[in-house]
Amino acid sequence: MHILVTNDDGVTAPGLLALAQEIRKLGKVTVFAPDRNWSASGHVKTMERPLRVRETILADGTPAFTSDGAPSDCVALPLLGLLDEKIDLVVSGINPHANLGHDVTYSGTVTAAMEAVIDGVKGIAVSLDSPDGHKGPLDYSTAAIVGRRVAEKVIADGLPEGVVLNVNVPYLKEDELKGYMITRHGLRVYRDELDSRLDPRGKPYYWIGGDFPTGVDEPGTDFSAVKNGYVSITPLQLDLTHYKAMDALKKWKF
Amino acid sequence: MHILVTNDDGVTAPGLLALAQEIRKLGKVTVFAPDRNWSASGHVKTMERPLRVRETILADGTPAFTSDGAPSDCVALPLLGLLDEKIDLVVSGINPHANLGHDVTYSGTVTAAMEAVIDGVKGIAVSLDSPDGHKGPLDYSTAAIVGRRVAEKVIADGLPEGVVLNVNVPYLKEDELKGYMITRHGLRVYRDELDSRLDPRGKPYYWIGGDFPTGVDEPGTDFSAVKNGYVSITPLQLDLTHYKAMDALKKWKF
Repeated sequence: MHILVTNDDGVTAPGLLALAQEIRKLGKVTVFAPDRNWSASGHVKTMERPLRVRETILADGTPAFTSDGAPSDCVALPLLGLLDEKIDLVVSGINPHANLGHDVTYSGTVTAAMEAVIDGVKGIAVSLDSPDGHKGPLDYSTAAIVGRRVAEKVIADGLPEGVVLNVNVPYLKEDELKGYMITRHGLRVYRDELDSRLDPRGKPYYWIGGDFPTGVDEPGTDFSAVKNGYVSITPLQLDLTHYKAMDALKKWKF
Repeated sequence: MHILVTNDDGVTAPGLLALAQEIRKLGKVTVFAPDRNWSASGHVKTMERPLRVRETILADGTPAFTSDGAPSDCVALPLLGLLDEKIDLVVSGINPHANLGHDVTYSGTVTAAMEAVIDGVKGIAVSLDSPDGHKGPLDYSTAAIVGRRVAEKVIADGLPEGVVLNVNVPYLKEDELKGYMITRHGLRVYRDELDSRLDPRGKPYYWIGGDFPTGVDEPGTDFSAVKNGYVSITPLQLDLTHYKAMDALKKWKF
């Protein structure tokens, strides 16, 4: 079993190290992660410029690869043959914030796992629902154990064709978790605001600011599960067709 | 009717101008597009740096806005209030290549339309299925007319809640089109290859190369429609849950 571990926060992120250390219990791990933070960067295929790859070393002294590409490039490069050895599974994370509902298309963590599935390899994204505005180092230990346990299930039982697993873990000790819940993608509520400022030369610039996103607490959703202390496991698909809408649109005459 | 026109190829792209000129027949148009090419950049929310906005002028002498943000930022900024006037519809394009099947999460054109829908405004993406390796200027006239006609339908009849329209137009004269087809998202087949090279100092770098993607020609799909001369209109959704996979996963015991 050869598992690729990546993330969207960059190769030096503590969440990556915590995940790699747990996943190593399941087989050979190769870490291949971006050389910088790509949060909210979406699903990228870098085609306008070439990519560099460097060998580096994680904080626990183990080797890793890093690239100036996006998280999805860090999955595509090894799957296209940059590594000699075949990859059986890609695990992406641990993201320091939850990736719930509509976050998934923005998320570098989730789109790295999507990239794996598009390229024919199983993919899991792991994110930690840390408290809004948390100060100081985060405790990734529960999320790392959960990531390893979900990966173990995927290795043992497989996954339906075309499924990407989006795992979100409450910020709790492992023995405080209420359990694991298979969920659907909930309704994310963004609270973005335009924050207009003037630079020292009096020219305007704009931050996309505002409060942390919240969500609609409907039973069965990813948002509801983590809010209530459960690990949320959402199977995502790559077919985005809104099948129910097709009938209404078929009435259109041009 | 106030319509925002954007794209992912940048404010100087001919496809943007062709689209804006046609859409102006339906109401007031504001053009707000990135200052550079963001192809295959995915769904971005720029939060780590502030954004600049400049007024510019299109090749037909009309005013436009441009920003150093991604296509989805160019939708979010005006919807968050950078423009005083309310926006009723966002049309993104015309992309010089088709956005079919799995292209949609990578596509800046499509994710700009997704951003509109997430922010509560109707969104349409328009792409031209130009021939692989076409040299010289593309003829956007048919795709622009199609974009305008689809926008007209959306204005007249509305769209089901949460639907993003992904429109792909064959590279044909308008009177050669076979018709309009409501389609599902097909199976894209990427033919990416790793192209390893050495720089002048003997150090390796990597292109994601290979042939243009193709697709599986199944009836009812976006890929099949454009290949057979039809405009493809695919309703996309933002709920990515793989509902069918949920039952299998619910059998997992942790």
